This record gives sequence, structure tokens and C-alpha cells, in this order.
Amino acid sequence: MKGTHLEALLYGRVFNFSAGPGTLPVEVLEEAREDLLNYKGCGMSVMEMSHRGKDYEAIHYETINSLRQILSVPEDWGVLFLQGGASLQNAMVPMNLGIEGKTPNYIDTGTWGHKSIGDAKKLGPLHIAWTSEPTNFDRAPADDEPSFTDDASYIYFTSNETIQGVDYLRDPDWGCDVPVVCDMSSNILSRPMALNRYDVIFAGAQKNQGPAGVATVLLSPRAIEIAKTKDLPLMLSWAEALKADSIHNTPPCWAIYICGLYYKWVMKEGGLTEMASRAEKRSSLIYDVIDGSEGFYVGHAQKGSRSQMNISFRAKDEELDKKFIQEAEANGMTTLAGHRSVGGMRASMYNAFPISGAQALADFMKDFMQRNG
Amino acid sequence: MKGTHLEALLYGRVFNFSAGPGTLPVEVLEEAREDLLNYKGCGMSVMEMSHRGKDYEAIHYETINSLRQILSVPEDWGVLFLQGGASLQNAMVPMNLGIEGKTPNYIDTGTWGHKSIGDAKKLGPLHIAWTSEPTNFDRAPADDEPSFTDDASYIYFTSNETIQGVDYLRDPDWGCDVPVVCDMSSNILSRPMALNRYDVIFAGAQKNQGPAGVATVLLSPRAIEIAKTKDLPLMLSWAEALKADSIHNTPPCWAIYICGLYYKWVMKEGGLTEMASRAEKRSSLIYDVIDGSEGFYVGHAQKGSRSQMNISFRAKDEELDKKFIQEAEANGMTTLAGHRSVGGMRASMYNAFPISGAQALADFMKDFMQRNG
Repeated sequence: MKGTHLEALLYGRVFNFSAGPGTLPVEVLEEAREDLLNYKGCGMSVMEMSHRGKDYEAIHYETINSLRQILSVPEDWGVLFLQGGASLQNAMVPMNLGIEGKTPNYIDTGTWGHKSIGDAKKLGPLHIAWTSEPTNFDRAPADDEPSFTDDASYIYFTSNETIQGVDYLRDPDWGCDVPVVCDMSSNILSRPMALNRYDVIFAGAQKNQGPAGVATVLLSPRAIEIAKTKDLPLMLSWAEALKADSIHNTPPCWAIYICGLYYKWVMKEGGLTEMASRAEKRSSLIYDVIDGSEGFYVGHAQKGSRSQMNISFRAKDEELDKKFIQEAEANGMTTLAGHRSVGGMRASMYNAFPISGAQALADFMKDFMQRNG
Repeated sequence: MKGTHLEALLYGRVFNFSAGPGTLPVEVLEEAREDLLNYKGCGMSVMEMSHRGKDYEAIHYETINSLRQILSVPEDWGVLFLQGGASLQNAMVPMNLGIEGKTPNYIDTGTWGHKSIGDAKKLGPLHIAWTSEPTNFDRAPADDEPSFTDDASYIYFTSNETIQGVDYLRDPDWGCDVPVVCDMSSNILSRPMALNRYDVIFAGAQKNQGPAGVATVLLSPRAIEIAKTKDLPLMLSWAEALKADSIHNTPPCWAIYICGLYYKWVMKEGGLTEMASRAEKRSSLIYDVIDGSEGFYVGHAQKGSRSQMNISFRAKDEELDKKFIQEAEANGMTTLAGHRSVGGMRASMYNAFPISGAQALADFMKDFMQRNG
């Protein structure tokens, strides 16, 4: 049934192009439903379990270990599941990794990098090492483009900008011996990666790994060392979370449980290599239509920075954009409106988004062009 | 079927005495299960919806309005749904309500008040206006017992200490014209209350109102005024959350949705008056056994401070405690072990905990006493 429209028709589900929260695997939802009132015979829902009991602890540690396995996270790295989304990490990064007298260096490729800079500025001075703001955030820099300061405390970048659809499509090598921090919310688990290029990776779960309400944070030994020197309130401290394996307060148990099911699905389907192959297939279907449209459709990102997760594009004029979104919606393809800062359309297709949905959108784009070209 | 063991036997569910996350209403779980793969025909799960789309927004605002309705929250008060649990509020209270040159005043009645003091101390000096630490947190103070400073920025207290089972059983009137902050995590919505005695009420949802992963925060106009003067990172700012009705980042949509179902259940069952009546019935069943046991069972809290939510008690000796917990577990009554700081047993019975479960525990306690007395 995979790769056909039947997959979406099952349960009357639509193709959901939301930029996040995004589509979850149907099998994950089915399993969650099955166990909703009584998890594996333990007599209660995962939502009702003591977070200090053996049933929840088993779920919790299995989820951590699955993420470790998928990303081949070394033993001496930390893996956290925290609340507050990637947005809280925008504040926690400077709090936990900042060094008195040194300067955080930020690379600004879109809305999320920009927001993170805004939050970090409230906590101290920083340096913007590179920005694509003058061209409305249409590309990521090459490794040698940013100008870092000699006193950098850390380098910060956003691997995929959800709103602009701009992706590095690689693990950058910034060539500096300072901790590298990456907001990977919208492309984590979408391709194999070189973990040794990073010190802190954080990601809201609601795009590529689960529902909203939890963020994953990976910490290198070097990042852990710095974090341990800080004396922060409990919920703002990576070190406190590490000590308690993220059970330093009541964790968002349900969200972590769903992430655990999602991770098992990723592994069963073939891991990051398979996720990358699907991302390539899905996004190529759409970019091919854009490139073959002789200007009827225009993509936002420059070709070397085209996201495989979020495709921001426009039709010839705004009236057509509106018509496109309305007609797509009527055809079971929802949440295709672009963010107001970019306009037009945005097709977000994360790990669990079926290839059949990308095919349906590509077919619709061609048909729409023929009728309105 | 209500009030009988059948309620618990349905779906093979146990009586779950967890201190939190705690029991949810079966009807809430049933409805969540029904809509899990396709919410009301919109073609996706609540976990997959864009938080900016009309389906989620309807859930979000209905949930806020339900809480406003249950607690009769005035129009000019703020109602927030935030991540990070009550624990993050331990840091956000001093950040958002502290005033340069003034001193926060804390009342210390147990583990949670104590933790909050620990966090607040990291952010500035404070005054402990009263503590029951010398008697291992066995009671709440009378209104005139604490000694507040003349320069108090705010007064902070914990209405019900989950671990010690200590409750004020009233809305204290501290007689000072400064903002009053209350951590109400473990007894919110369990009885009608005088909202005008408070300026900030916060509560993790996972005890009396929903699953883990979201905390409710109520703010008086006076608290809002102070919070608006602060320039804080996005996720640490009450003012930013207020401006966006808690959609300042991706909210924990699923947890908020379950809270919304829970609130509707509270209203349908008869609101706070009915919740209070049930709490009185459940807790009396247990306290009556303790008081009639001629010292076989000993309660932790003094009589005027006995929580109706969390009953901390011990049997004659530690061996009996262990045996009690094991046998109760074998009889479908789980998570009765007390916290290590208090020992013995703890029976937590929140809003959704059935009276039949309290009756079952009371019966078991009597039987256990007869067999071991």
C-alpha cells in the first residue's frame, strides 16, 4: 500500500504539509491508540504513569537509547529530552555554554537563527559572523564565508531554516577549535551526519521525530564540561538534566513515548540512509516541477541551499498563490500556505510524510499550471 | 457503574495512587483514543496539527476558556499554558515578578516550597518568612505566623505539599498589600477558591488537570503589570506568552488538548463544588481508618493541615510498610510507596481518582491491620 494514495485515504487522513507539528507515521498513531487506556497491560495510560515507576522508566530509557542508536551517539555524549521546545534552547545555549569575556558567534540564515540571536542578545553581547538577511535569507554560507572572532565562545548555526527552506545539505566544517551549536529542529534524522562536527545539537521534536512538547538535546563531552561549571535554576541547567537523565522534574512523558515509537519506526524502515533517500525522492518531485515550469513556479532558496524538508515557492502572482492553496486544500493537501515573511506556498515533508503525498502535490502542481499557465 | 469496582475493572485498569502523573478520567482517555488518528474528521491527529491552524486554535482557546470558566477567572487576568512544569515557574517567578531592591518572601512547608526557594536563591537574595522544616514539614502556618519583611516584593507559598501531604485547606489571607504567588500543582481545581487572594497561581497539569508536559499559570492585572517591565528571553517571559496567548512558540498541543477534555469533564461532573465533595469523601475514607487504627497507622501531617489529595502515612514499622505496599500492588492498588524523605505509604487521589478506589484502599487497610495488628 506504501506509495499509493490508499495510505492517506486510510482513516480519512489528508496529506498534511504542515511545517510542524507535522505528519507522524500511521503505525505510531495506531500503536498509541491501541495502548491508550492500558499500556501493555500495566493498567493505566502512559499519560497516567508515575515518572519514577518502572513502566515509564522503561519507555524513557528505551527512547534515549533508540536515539543514541539511530545517530550513533558516542557513550560520553549526553542525550536530553527537555521541555520548552527549541525556543527555550535559544536561551539555554548562552546560559550553559557562554564563557565570561568570550563572544558567541552566530550565523544567520533565516527566521530561526534570527530569533535565537534575539534571545542570546538579551543575555550578553554576541557577534554575527554571517547573514543572508539582505537577500531575504535565500542561502546558507560556504564553510569559509563567515568571519568568526578570535575570542569565540561558540559558533551557532541553524542547519535547516524551516520558513525559508534553506539547508546546508552538509555538516559544515568551520575550521575553528570552539564548540559548535546547531539548531537541527527541522532536519534532524533526515540524513546520516558527522556528529564529530558538532558539540550541541538541539531539535524540537514536532517535525522529524515526534509531537510538540519535547526537544532533544545532544551534548559533546566538551559541552558537558562547560555546562557543569554553571549554577543555574533546575530547569535551565543542562548539567541538572544530565545528572537525572532528564527526569529532574516530571518529563513530558507522553511526548517522549511517542518519540520512542517514532524512533523504532525510523529504525524498522531502514534508518537514516532510508530517511535520506525518501527525502531526496519527495523533494525532487517538487523541485523538478518548479524547475520545469519555465517560471510559473519560483523557488525561494538558491539551488545549492534547497531544503529537502521545507520547499518554499510561489506561483506567478499572489492571486494564483491563493487559488493554488485553496484548490490543493479541496484536494486533500492541507497547510500549504507559506509563512507571511516569504509568501506563496510551503510544502513541508518530514520523515513520516509519504512519498505518495509528494507525488500528489507534484501532479497537482502540473495540472494547476496547465489550467492557469 | 460509578463508585463501584467495575469502573476500574473496565479495560483492566488498576487503582493508580501515583502522586503525579495521576489518574485521568476514563471518558477523557476514551475520547482521545476515538480521535487519535483523525480528529473530528479533519484528517490528522491533534499531535500532527499546525499550531497556527484553525483546528488546533479552536482546541487551544476552548481549553483556556474552560479553565477561565471553572475558576471564574476575571477578564483582566491572564491564563497561560506553558512548558517546563511547575519547576520552570520556580525560576520564572523571580525573573518575572522580582523587583530590584525588594525581597521575595517564601513560606516553606515541604519539598516543593523548598525546591522553589533553592531556585530563587540562585537569582537573588530572599527571605524565608516561615518554615516547618524542624518538624519535617508536618503542617501549614496560620495566617499570622509568618514574619514578612517590610520590603517584600512578593509572598510565595505552596498550597498543598504533594510529598508531605500538607495543605492549607483554605485561601490564606496574609494581610500584606504585595503580590501573592502560589504553587497550586497538587490541589488546583480540587475545591472552590477565592481568586482575589492571589496574584500568581501556577500548577503542573499532571495531577489535577491533565497529563505531564504543560503547566497552567494565572496572572492578576498587578502581576501582569510587573511582568511587562521585564526584558527576558522568549520562553522565560510571562509577558511574551500573554501577548501570544501561549502560542509564542509551538505549544505542547496534545497536553493542552487533554487538559481541555479534562476541564469539560470537571464541568460536566459538577465543577469545583463536586470535586471538593469527592475529595472530602475519598480522603475521609482513609483518614478515618488511620484515626481508628489505634496507632497501627500514623499519618504524617498534623490534623489541621491534612491534604485531601495526598495522604502520607506509615504502618507500625518499616517491614509492615513494605508488606503493605506489596500486597496492595497484588490487589490492583499501585504506586502507594511514600517518598523517601517521608517513608511509609502515600495515597494520592486527585480529581479523576474514583471514590471506589479510596473505598478499596480503606477496606484493604482494615483487612491488613486485622491480619497484622
